[in-house]
Amino acid sequence: MELLKGKPVADKINEKTAAITEELLSKDIVPTLAILRVGSDPSDIAYEESAVKKAKSLGVHVEKYIMDAKSDESDVLDVLKVINDDENIHGILMFRPLPAGMDEEKVRNHLAAAKDVDGITDAALGGIFTGNVSGFPPCTAEAAMTILKYYGIELSGKKAVVIGRSLVVGKPVAMMLMAEHATVTICHSRTPEEDLKAACLDADIIICAAGRRSTLTEDCVNGKQVVIDVGINFDEEGKMCGDADFEAVKDKVKAITPVPGGVGGVTTALLMHHTAAAAAAYAAMHKA
Amino acid sequence: MELLKGKPVADKINEKTAAITEELLSKDIVPTLAILRVGSDPSDIAYEESAVKKAKSLGVHVEKYIMDAKSDESDVLDVLKVINDDENIHGILMFRPLPAGMDEEKVRNHLAAAKDVDGITDAALGGIFTGNVSGFPPCTAEAAMTILKYYGIELSGKKAVVIGRSLVVGKPVAMMLMAEHATVTICHSRTPEEDLKAACLDADIIICAAGRRSTLTEDCVNGKQVVIDVGINFDEEGKMCGDADFEAVKDKVKAITPVPGGVGGVTTALLMHHTAAAAAAYAAMHKA
Repeated sequence: MELLKGKPVADKINEKTAAITEELLSKDIVPTLAILRVGSDPSDIAYEESAVKKAKSLGVHVEKYIMDAKSDESDVLDVLKVINDDENIHGILMFRPLPAGMDEEKVRNHLAAAKDVDGITDAALGGIFTGNVSGFPPCTAEAAMTILKYYGIELSGKKAVVIGRSLVVGKPVAMMLMAEHATVTICHSRTPEEDLKAACLDADIIICAAGRRSTLTEDCVNGKQVVIDVGINFDEEGKMCGDADFEAVKDKVKAITPVPGGVGGVTTALLMHHTAAAAAAYAAMHKA
Repeated sequence: MELLKGKPVADKINEKTAAITEELLSKDIVPTLAILRVGSDPSDIAYEESAVKKAKSLGVHVEKYIMDAKSDESDVLDVLKVINDDENIHGILMFRPLPAGMDEEKVRNHLAAAKDVDGITDAALGGIFTGNVSGFPPCTAEAAMTILKYYGIELSGKKAVVIGRSLVVGKPVAMMLMAEHATVTICHSRTPEEDLKAACLDADIIICAAGRRSTLTEDCVNGKQVVIDVGINFDEEGKMCGDADFEAVKDKVKAITPVPGGVGGVTTALLMHHTAAAAAAYAAMHKA
């Protein structure tokens, strides 16, 4: 089994980001990411802290907009407008899900397209579907693809199974795999267990994006699969784990990403890279 | 084998269309479809003739805009603008592919969203992907789904194989099947022949949308498949046929749509229904 660690992949992206950032700073442009968090979900806060740390090391400035979970939807839209209009902000990370009662679809589509560094607007997502890509892809889906490419995993003509059909990962990563000429099967919560198992056993590549522990079990693999585990879950003891039963699966797959230490760090690296790229695009459009 | 004829499905849609049209005509609104054809492709002309005939029988008016194959792209955009601005036109059917040299992606995205009755703009297609449907779905993809529903074919938890990954049929129909909770495998020109065969043999539902004769052969079916054949091809003798080898396959499937007599007529029926619905929406927005 080959362990597909995220660190070397993230390092390579971070190098590129640091180069862009250095160039921008020399022109007195500070690439800036706004983080919009509504409420105080502990896992959001944990991710935020690590993102802030990573941003700092790369020369990306972060501005936090923290709102009470009981805020009105209209207040969130007002804050988004402020962020959209602020020409010193180049990218926006908005934590989801938003508190119950808010129309998330409406809110996410209020992000300015040029600042949508996590590909959450319908325009960005639609581009992934039509192949007419106009914005940034969702970072997590792109992270899965970047890891596959970094480790030289062949995709063309191969059988890929995507477990999960969310707009954040499952659907976009399925489109990206298909664009690389893989034959793609999308399984989800309504796929009978035996069908999921059969599809996985027949697959060359498996993307776990169900967001549920023990989605990929020992009896789903037979030695030939490359597994990219996008899940971030916690076990009974509060230990972070992916969607795959890592210990049971690891010696029965060709390769697998660990959790933690796999997709997560690459996702953050891509978020920062997108922010720097958005700042560079802004600078190119507004140069004196 | 059950023959899934398109006629009863189309008849049911046409009844609804005629009812909408009658209501609109009583208010002096004539539902109108503009057909934009660039060049003189014989199969375009054949489809146009049948659409005009069908429209007439349903009280839908058709205005033809026929342009020379050597027209400039800017001329086509100018004509589209005239059609978009004409408040007596409610829907647009634009034949594709456009002549070589034209930027089809650019041209199709110039259609006014409200008049995009065949779901060809990125906005309409993106909505199919995100589930945030804002316009009309592509008629052919919707026709495949409508036939499945009419004949009571269960989709939830079933295995569907889509052959073809075009934006016109393959990709949207895959999203629609997934929205109905089917497990979906998308095969395409880069899928190895043995993988296509294995996927089909394992499937409950097969959508043939490759646009190539003999894509679905006898050895791809084993008695349990429901086949929707979207293909419109012609054999050596000039006889219309689908993507499936109908004669060889028909007694080895559970059900199949014939070509002709299957998906095509339902597609036309939906195009007219969308046009009438677009006219009704226009009337509702502009009532005195």
